[in-house]
Amino acid sequence: MRPVDLIRKKRDGGEHSPREIFSLIESFTRGDVPDYQMSAWLMAVVLRGMSEAETAALTEAMLRSGQVMDLSALPGVKVDKHSTGGVGDKTSLILAPIVAAGGLIVPMISGRGLSHTGGTLDKLEAIPGFKVNLSPSEFINILGSCGCAIVGQTAEIAPADKRMYALRDVTGTVESPPLICASIMSKKLAEGIDALVLDVKTGSGAFMKRQEDAEHLARMMVETGERMGKRMAALITDMDQPLGRTVGNSLEVRECIEILRGDRQPMSEDLRSLSIELSAWMFYLGAHTETVEAGRARAEGLLSSGRALAKFREMCRQQGGDISSDLAPATFATEFKAEEAGFITEIHCEKVGMASLVLGGGRNKQDDCIDHHVGLELHKKTGDAVQIGERIATVHYNDATYLGNALQFLQDAYPIGPQQPNQPRQLVKRVIEGERKKT
Amino acid sequence: MRPVDLIRKKRDGGEHSPREIFSLIESFTRGDVPDYQMSAWLMAVVLRGMSEAETAALTEAMLRSGQVMDLSALPGVKVDKHSTGGVGDKTSLILAPIVAAGGLIVPMISGRGLSHTGGTLDKLEAIPGFKVNLSPSEFINILGSCGCAIVGQTAEIAPADKRMYALRDVTGTVESPPLICASIMSKKLAEGIDALVLDVKTGSGAFMKRQEDAEHLARMMVETGERMGKRMAALITDMDQPLGRTVGNSLEVRECIEILRGDRQPMSEDLRSLSIELSAWMFYLGAHTETVEAGRARAEGLLSSGRALAKFREMCRQQGGDISSDLAPATFATEFKAEEAGFITEIHCEKVGMASLVLGGGRNKQDDCIDHHVGLELHKKTGDAVQIGERIATVHYNDATYLGNALQFLQDAYPIGPQQPNQPRQLVKRVIEGERKKT
Repeated sequence: MRPVDLIRKKRDGGEHSPREIFSLIESFTRGDVPDYQMSAWLMAVVLRGMSEAETAALTEAMLRSGQVMDLSALPGVKVDKHSTGGVGDKTSLILAPIVAAGGLIVPMISGRGLSHTGGTLDKLEAIPGFKVNLSPSEFINILGSCGCAIVGQTAEIAPADKRMYALRDVTGTVESPPLICASIMSKKLAEGIDALVLDVKTGSGAFMKRQEDAEHLARMMVETGERMGKRMAALITDMDQPLGRTVGNSLEVRECIEILRGDRQPMSEDLRSLSIELSAWMFYLGAHTETVEAGRARAEGLLSSGRALAKFREMCRQQGGDISSDLAPATFATEFKAEEAGFITEIHCEKVGMASLVLGGGRNKQDDCIDHHVGLELHKKTGDAVQIGERIATVHYNDATYLGNALQFLQDAYPIGPQQPNQPRQLVKRVIEGERKKT
Repeated sequence: MRPVDLIRKKRDGGEHSPREIFSLIESFTRGDVPDYQMSAWLMAVVLRGMSEAETAALTEAMLRSGQVMDLSALPGVKVDKHSTGGVGDKTSLILAPIVAAGGLIVPMISGRGLSHTGGTLDKLEAIPGFKVNLSPSEFINILGSCGCAIVGQTAEIAPADKRMYALRDVTGTVESPPLICASIMSKKLAEGIDALVLDVKTGSGAFMKRQEDAEHLARMMVETGERMGKRMAALITDMDQPLGRTVGNSLEVRECIEILRGDRQPMSEDLRSLSIELSAWMFYLGAHTETVEAGRARAEGLLSSGRALAKFREMCRQQGGDISSDLAPATFATEFKAEEAGFITEIHCEKVGMASLVLGGGRNKQDDCIDHHVGLELHKKTGDAVQIGERIATVHYNDATYLGNALQFLQDAYPIGPQQPNQPRQLVKRVIEGERKKT
């Protein structure tokens, strides 16, 4: 079938055979299908959707467009976590060392920040010397000796996704569950893992604002992973307020180290709790514990014994990073204070992310430079009471140019009302578990 | 608004402002919007549709992307006809001279054949010497002296449409009423006309198979033309069987000359009748007659007096063509005969068109060469009785390579059954008339 016939078929609501999808993706990767045909097909997919079988075929075609890591030489179960992205979301830095300290292999290929959400690679690069661009053999060596490593995507991993994502970004074809699913899963499955835990965010700071959309995507990814022989689970988690008490790269690394060190801060409890929950599911799916509950206990134990912190130090050292040095915040700080008394009725999470971004902590464009030292320390969660003049956030900055801008974002982010909102906050809203046996 | 925001807006079912559409089309024509963004937007339009106001704005933006003919120096009303294309449809060659002989100006910019349907330019080029590529000033000169001229689209006419059509052709975005409407109307309005009669085909040989789709498109075009200040009417006409009794370029020119000469052949009556009907509406909309009925009488009179034929000869002469010379059919001929007795229950018109195309009478690709002498003489209409061995069509060919192919298409095109189909054939199924006063 010619590309134009495939486009017409999808336009008219038809279902592609796996063969059709493989042929389209192969031709696109080879450069035989021009961008203008691919973008028309992508828009047809956005508006017509894809079946489970089509989504799985697309995932597999994108996976096969590049290399799949061969980790068979490493003993032990390989398990990873993927988050759809949020504000203050830094669980990877905590759970990778926990799970590796427990004896599993965590081969984590991570991404950069996207619009208002931070990226794991950006956070790690706040650690002086930390290298995220490793060759496959360096990556495997560190996994062998340390058990976990966190690196960026190489050109060899799912090149079809790389080209397709660049196109989707400028053609309004990002927002499609099957395309998101295939993009995420093709990269994750290229890691050569046995099991994967998904953290699918929902709420004001998430790409999926509505829980039902998050669940729909989660179910699709779980099904796709299972079709490819992986053990899967997805946690639908809250992103109606930032996770933890910091936003900004070096501030976030420090918060993670505090948790790994065993410090308990009330404002960081949600982050600690979610990291343990995700670790528990990784232990469970990785057949390391019989139950999720046992996984939780295992994670708590590895935190309190200091073994997770030691693993984090080791991973940083092996990737060239020095956590004893310069993780200081930016030169200047100012307090963002409440202008009236009352309760924080909600937090517009996206605006908190934007406040950090405009200070230099994130990127507006792909090649923007990041200032790792800027960011926000947050002092209030949704429902907390505030007095007039009480600080809601501390703003760390080096350049005052966009400080007013950042403060305006914060002003908009924290509405204050007379009544305490009575919805109890639920961190894990739902678990969508795969059916594949834990062997 | 950035192009990606416009794409997202249409993707989500939003309505564009005229300003947004003008800006998109202007940027695309300048080359500032890449094809991959335009094709994504086009697919969103195909699947989300466009309002009347959006369609009118798109038409105007495409019209404004190039030159509009200035025919103000020519006295008289300018009126044209456009057909959505069919098999054996050659009314333009008959009605342009009729209407010009009546004193109106017919500035006809026509197209090439598209898949199974023939194109007016291809037919005219069967006349030795006939030039369809005239400069605007040559075109206007002939219109001034002769009253009608039929030419191809120049690069100056609606360049946005030219680029967009090439893109639509390869991205599965042809089949969209608002896009078809804007493409047709922007070119027709560039002719500088006062009134336009549309011949919107429906049936097995038409692009719009279903009458309701044809009516929908017709209504859209009538409304768009009226918004631009033109007097409009659309005739929904039958394309369930070929029009007239020939398919193939020189054969079709000869059939037209016969009709202009006053010959009456039963198999050509539908073609004659539709040409008169369309001429009548052109006279009526061009305010040349008080009623359509009077327009019919006028057309009949111009045919029987020989004035229409004289006008056709004059137009051909002025465009360099010699109709007295070589309009002979191809070297070889064979009869396609009935293999059983019964009635022609229907005619799969598209297959008749394909039979002529594979003989060399049409194009598979844009740059294919056409053999003007090949084609079909048809001897039966739907409902006609046939005996075993009775001829249904005469096939004229120069190269026997695809003759078997052509005969197979004909075999499939003419199913024969024991019962005479009892649907009386209606040539003009409906008229959709604009509301603009005939001044």
